Amino acid sequence: MKKLIGIDLGGTTAKFAILTKDGEVQQKWSIPTNVQDEGKNIVPDIIESINHRLDLYGLTSENFLGIGMGSPGSVDINDGTVIGAYNLNWRTLQPVKEQIEAGTNIPFFIDNDANVAALGERWKGAGEGSGNVVFITLGTGVGGGIIAEGNLVHGVGAAGEIGHITVDPEGYACNCGSVGCLETVASATGIVRVARDLSEEYAGDSKLKWLIDDGQEVTAKTVFDQVKDGDPLADMVVERFYSYLGLACSNIANVLNPDSIVIGGGVSAAGETLINGVRKYFDKYAFPPIKSVTKLKLAELGNDAGVIGAASLVKENVE
Amino acid sequence: MKKLIGIDLGGTTAKFAILTKDGEVQQKWSIPTNVQDEGKNIVPDIIESINHRLDLYGLTSENFLGIGMGSPGSVDINDGTVIGAYNLNWRTLQPVKEQIEAGTNIPFFIDNDANVAALGERWKGAGEGSGNVVFITLGTGVGGGIIAEGNLVHGVGAAGEIGHITVDPEGYACNCGSVGCLETVASATGIVRVARDLSEEYAGDSKLKWLIDDGQEVTAKTVFDQVKDGDPLADMVVERFYSYLGLACSNIANVLNPDSIVIGGGVSAAGETLINGVRKYFDKYAFPPIKSVTKLKLAELGNDAGVIGAASLVKENVE
Repeated sequence: MKKLIGIDLGGTTAKFAILTKDGEVQQKWSIPTNVQDEGKNIVPDIIESINHRLDLYGLTSENFLGIGMGSPGSVDINDGTVIGAYNLNWRTLQPVKEQIEAGTNIPFFIDNDANVAALGERWKGAGEGSGNVVFITLGTGVGGGIIAEGNLVHGVGAAGEIGHITVDPEGYACNCGSVGCLETVASATGIVRVARDLSEEYAGDSKLKWLIDDGQEVTAKTVFDQVKDGDPLADMVVERFYSYLGLACSNIANVLNPDSIVIGGGVSAAGETLINGVRKYFDKYAFPPIKSVTKLKLAELGNDAGVIGAASLVKENVE
Repeated sequence: MKKLIGIDLGGTTAKFAILTKDGEVQQKWSIPTNVQDEGKNIVPDIIESINHRLDLYGLTSENFLGIGMGSPGSVDINDGTVIGAYNLNWRTLQPVKEQIEAGTNIPFFIDNDANVAALGERWKGAGEGSGNVVFITLGTGVGGGIIAEGNLVHGVGAAGEIGHITVDPEGYACNCGSVGCLETVASATGIVRVARDLSEEYAGDSKLKWLIDDGQEVTAKTVFDQVKDGDPLADMVVERFYSYLGLACSNIANVLNPDSIVIGGGVSAAGETLINGVRKYFDKYAFPPIKSVTKLKLAELGNDAGVIGAASLVKENVE
């Protein structure tokens, strides 16, 4: 049985896995992403690493059905190119598919990183193989991937921009040029922004406020840790986060009525507490027949969602 | 070449059409919907009308590939049943497919009315055959249909509830039990509700205010007519309508990035003015790469969207 290779390309590392066609991970490794010189070594490094590992395992291109990759930036899935991936220093068009196919002699498929993570969670994680799953990743930014009626939704190119759903028309300015985007309040940086703002107005006793005023490093994790310790300001901050994310999830569900909305990314480390908090506001806003069937779930694959989903791109395209 | 029959079932009339497989309407007729006795005569009346017309035109069941129907209420597309269609007085489960296939000897397919109208506009109207189209109908309520990657999206059953997207978490209570749903402010009744509320606070000179205070019948059309006459209160009302609809459209586009969002239903009679008004707020809220490609358009088929889209259900299922 031919195997799959999945690559999860990020600004710090590129993660690799060799999988069976059934999605069982057989080998995993990673290499640092070299973003110097406009990231011109990134693709050659990937090719070299694959060929090296294949030698090591006594495998050849004949043993593989294909290579799938998830990439940041704006991905043209048909041409197999990437542009505007700023954390890779890829500002100009990168012919990734052409280079990797030439360098490995294995068919290559690519999609953006959030879409690929959605495919991974659908295949082997919280999505349980459902044809209707929405994936939201809460990290430095907020990304998303939409699977509807069995297909990854690209729309006219940029579907899944869940981080830019407007949750507060009077809210913070977003990097994208709009205001009140989900990303401004529900990403790791957004949660800290809300914490700093509420802290300024907060007059009561709060460890979180003390940490902020003392100039200590405060992250989303700090906020969630303080909630566990009963901090009243931290509680206000996460309630606001829950309300915005619950509103966004209910609006997505009212449009798509997915089987589940799967929440991943670093912020989701807060766990079931987060799901319960979001669920409260989701239930407040969602259309009743929809809220009774659409589930909210934590992502299950963690860092592996990318490589597993990337490998599944091969299955989607070859079979 | 075999033909198609499309049926658009509504609370007042059932509209019928015979179409070629290419979607050319060859015959149209309608019958009143008899909602008495829990609507038990509706399906028998439909069967009788079809058989009568087939006789009239010298056609038999052999001449047809199938019958498609759009229905209000909650439709089970696999079983071909309808439940909870209150404007038909169908409170209990109606085995529509079973009855119509037995009564006509023609294969039968059904979906909900907004989904069917979306298929119609995609096939022969403003959707121009695109695989990514969202249809919003602004009538007494607000309905929707989603086509993504070529497929009508049902999700786990109730996708397309665009009328229940929350546009104002502090807004009006909705019949659905939630608050601030798009339907509460952007349906024909919602626009009048906003007009009445703003009128109470409005102290200036306004014909619209005078009409409301005088107890005259005020509809969404009255409001749009007054805008044309330069009425300042009417202007405030439609700006609020535009902002809510623009916000909902941008949130849909950020998730699905469709080729176009097609706006139909009675309220859309306001025409290009409406599209321009909504566009202003859409551009304010949508993610830049998305707003540059997703178009806002008026529906083109009017009352025919239902029968044409219903007929296309046959094509979707048989071919």
